[in-house]
Amino acid sequence: MERTTIGQLSDKKGEKVHIAGWVDVRRDHGKLMFLVLRDRSGVAQAVVKSGVEAFETAQPLREQWVVSAQGTVNERPDNMKKDEQNGDIELVIEELTVLAPAAELPFDLDAELNLDTLLDYRPLTLRTQRGRDIFSVAATIVQAYRWALITREFTEFQAPALTGGDAEGGAEVFKVEYFHDRTAFLATSPQLYKEIMTGVYERAFTIAKIFRAEKSATTRHLSEVTQMDFEMGFIEDHLDVMEMLEAVIRDVCAAVVEKHPDVFARFDTEAPLLPNEAFPVLTLLEAQEIIEKEFGGKAVGEPDLEPEHERQICEWAKKEKGSDFVFITEFPTAKRAFYTYPDPNNPERSYSFDLLFRGLEINSGSQRFHDYDQMVETIKERGMDPEKFSFYLQMHKYGVPPHGGCSTGLERFTARVLNIANVKEAVPFPRDMNRIDSRLSEE
Amino acid sequence: MERTTIGQLSDKKGEKVHIAGWVDVRRDHGKLMFLVLRDRSGVAQAVVKSGVEAFETAQPLREQWVVSAQGTVNERPDNMKKDEQNGDIELVIEELTVLAPAAELPFDLDAELNLDTLLDYRPLTLRTQRGRDIFSVAATIVQAYRWALITREFTEFQAPALTGGDAEGGAEVFKVEYFHDRTAFLATSPQLYKEIMTGVYERAFTIAKIFRAEKSATTRHLSEVTQMDFEMGFIEDHLDVMEMLEAVIRDVCAAVVEKHPDVFARFDTEAPLLPNEAFPVLTLLEAQEIIEKEFGGKAVGEPDLEPEHERQICEWAKKEKGSDFVFITEFPTAKRAFYTYPDPNNPERSYSFDLLFRGLEINSGSQRFHDYDQMVETIKERGMDPEKFSFYLQMHKYGVPPHGGCSTGLERFTARVLNIANVKEAVPFPRDMNRIDSRLSEE
Repeated sequence: MERTTIGQLSDKKGEKVHIAGWVDVRRDHGKLMFLVLRDRSGVAQAVVKSGVEAFETAQPLREQWVVSAQGTVNERPDNMKKDEQNGDIELVIEELTVLAPAAELPFDLDAELNLDTLLDYRPLTLRTQRGRDIFSVAATIVQAYRWALITREFTEFQAPALTGGDAEGGAEVFKVEYFHDRTAFLATSPQLYKEIMTGVYERAFTIAKIFRAEKSATTRHLSEVTQMDFEMGFIEDHLDVMEMLEAVIRDVCAAVVEKHPDVFARFDTEAPLLPNEAFPVLTLLEAQEIIEKEFGGKAVGEPDLEPEHERQICEWAKKEKGSDFVFITEFPTAKRAFYTYPDPNNPERSYSFDLLFRGLEINSGSQRFHDYDQMVETIKERGMDPEKFSFYLQMHKYGVPPHGGCSTGLERFTARVLNIANVKEAVPFPRDMNRIDSRLSEE
Repeated sequence: MERTTIGQLSDKKGEKVHIAGWVDVRRDHGKLMFLVLRDRSGVAQAVVKSGVEAFETAQPLREQWVVSAQGTVNERPDNMKKDEQNGDIELVIEELTVLAPAAELPFDLDAELNLDTLLDYRPLTLRTQRGRDIFSVAATIVQAYRWALITREFTEFQAPALTGGDAEGGAEVFKVEYFHDRTAFLATSPQLYKEIMTGVYERAFTIAKIFRAEKSATTRHLSEVTQMDFEMGFIEDHLDVMEMLEAVIRDVCAAVVEKHPDVFARFDTEAPLLPNEAFPVLTLLEAQEIIEKEFGGKAVGEPDLEPEHERQICEWAKKEKGSDFVFITEFPTAKRAFYTYPDPNNPERSYSFDLLFRGLEINSGSQRFHDYDQMVETIKERGMDPEKFSFYLQMHKYGVPPHGGCSTGLERFTARVLNIANVKEAVPFPRDMNRIDSRLSEE
């Protein structure tokens, strides 16, 4: 018999069906065995009654065993119906086959686990409702992000992970033993390639892995990150990029709400709060003044917002502007990457921005240099060698329009959508200074 | 005035418009200057007539200069209309601004360049019609591939690029200096993670970068590759995976034909030939016998098909079965990866397959082990240490259904769709033993 997915059972009342899935829950009631079964489409309650062979087969079943079952979909009496998936039916199992047994679980999957245990047992803990929720939402985010850009005439490309030089300097970079005894480096950003593609397609985006060798074990750092990057040409200034980003973010939030309406309650949060007006925009100075006035402490004059300041200004934006998102602009040019375009009227300030979401910077962007001579001059002023950028500088040399772009961290965005405290939980297989799958110190 | 994209000009006959783009062609006719202008949406012919200030501005323009222009969209007389984009109109430029100049080009962009020059000047050569075509098609392929899987209830995830061990052995692996003086490795496949996700979502896919440190400079090898991988649970055997793959490939081909109907002629090829029936399937032995019979030489008894054999069997499949695609099955178990499921009736042959497309293997797949004890035993038999696979083996330990999957190389697939001889041309920024952007030997 053709397999029916569990999500379709409610439409098959009175019919014989064949399903397959995992045992999520097993409750032994003597002459009745209740099973909650799960497949890719959801869960349903099934029952096996004594007297059929399936009842014997069901005896050894435990959580995570994999089974194939045939039976009849019975409608529950009205007083037994529940307001949940398949809450109006129960599958009466007539035939049962074990496809794969499972070892006894090392802990109760419903328990709240500490992060190390959660990650040590990742192949198992990903199977929990929480695990499946996080990465279902992440999948929706990344696809909605791409789709928002594709429908706005951006062309996707694959940015390289291996780079030839640590050209940008700054961030700590992983070294790779390459051919000819050469050292290659893992990309810290797809930035230069994304700009090059702006010279080709005018609007380009990439979902790229980036790597940071920072010895940092905070709740916001990872060694391997998925960045969602776009870049667009023929802009007036960075405000055009911010407008595009806001449109993309709104599309992404709408997709998450549409596809996962129930998920927010399970994470003790709500759908992202979007203002009716445009996202609030504050200059760094304005934000710092608000922080000092509303929350006390010292902020004005600092070149960036501290993590605590990011939380405070987001709290303010939510209360005063009804928005979980807030843009910060006009960061000091000297504190941003070398390709950041300075404000022509005040070159110490840059045409740059960060987007904060629920207390965390999730996106950073700016207008970039498009003029060859200005770019070369700036590279020199920053103490770097234009020769090392000759590949990148071909873009400026052969004509590129005023352009800008930005970069959203998938993990940070997912974590903030779902109110997850540590970004490591928003990566299926996180890498950091202490872990690649298993803990490094233990091996 | 709002900017109009060039692709919309034909709908604006008689109207004043503002456009912006690159100079693709400049033809100086004395009192008339003809320009072909390009933006993300396409090209159009424009003319600047002497007597307006724009005519002076236009004098220094050369190929790849970036301009902004205002003017009127004139319908061409019937005898001047051409059957091409904007072939029925001409833009008469009244105002012209240079947004960015371009240096004199190092060569004629229309010339046929050798591969090294093409890649040395990648930021420039990507801008040719050929460059833009290749990566527009690649973007369509990857998005259509994902969409084909999403609509079939697969969940996307981000597979890691950094791995903790060279567990699988076999392929040459790049080493990375990691924290704690540890060596990490660049992933040669997302295989183990993809299987783990099958335990979570039943159907999972990833678009992942993989890395091969092979000292190979052939037309089919790259050091960094984009793989499109999927994996599915509750299969009968590998034939279920092949059926899914065929459906995905058909969707992808349909998307390319729909979005790029003109591209095939520009690459001296045709849309992929898809049979009315299912893709032809040959066992390795059957394929070898056909090769010997039809093309001569020795093939039977070899554990795999040589590149020349792949070309021959594809030639046969096209002629005899009307298909650019052909599946080869039943490869020797010993020659496939350790997780490949052997045929229970003949364990020396495996439940594996390759998909060949126009003379090249573009996909490889199989059923995998799902039973914990069998998997541990096989790892031992292959001389590897199950301890090193303990993270992966959690999946088997805690119950995973019979499953299988496969992996398509984006670059190889793109190259074959567009009749590109060297796979390096199907990567925007190829990495191989001699090149990371610039040639390694020259630095």
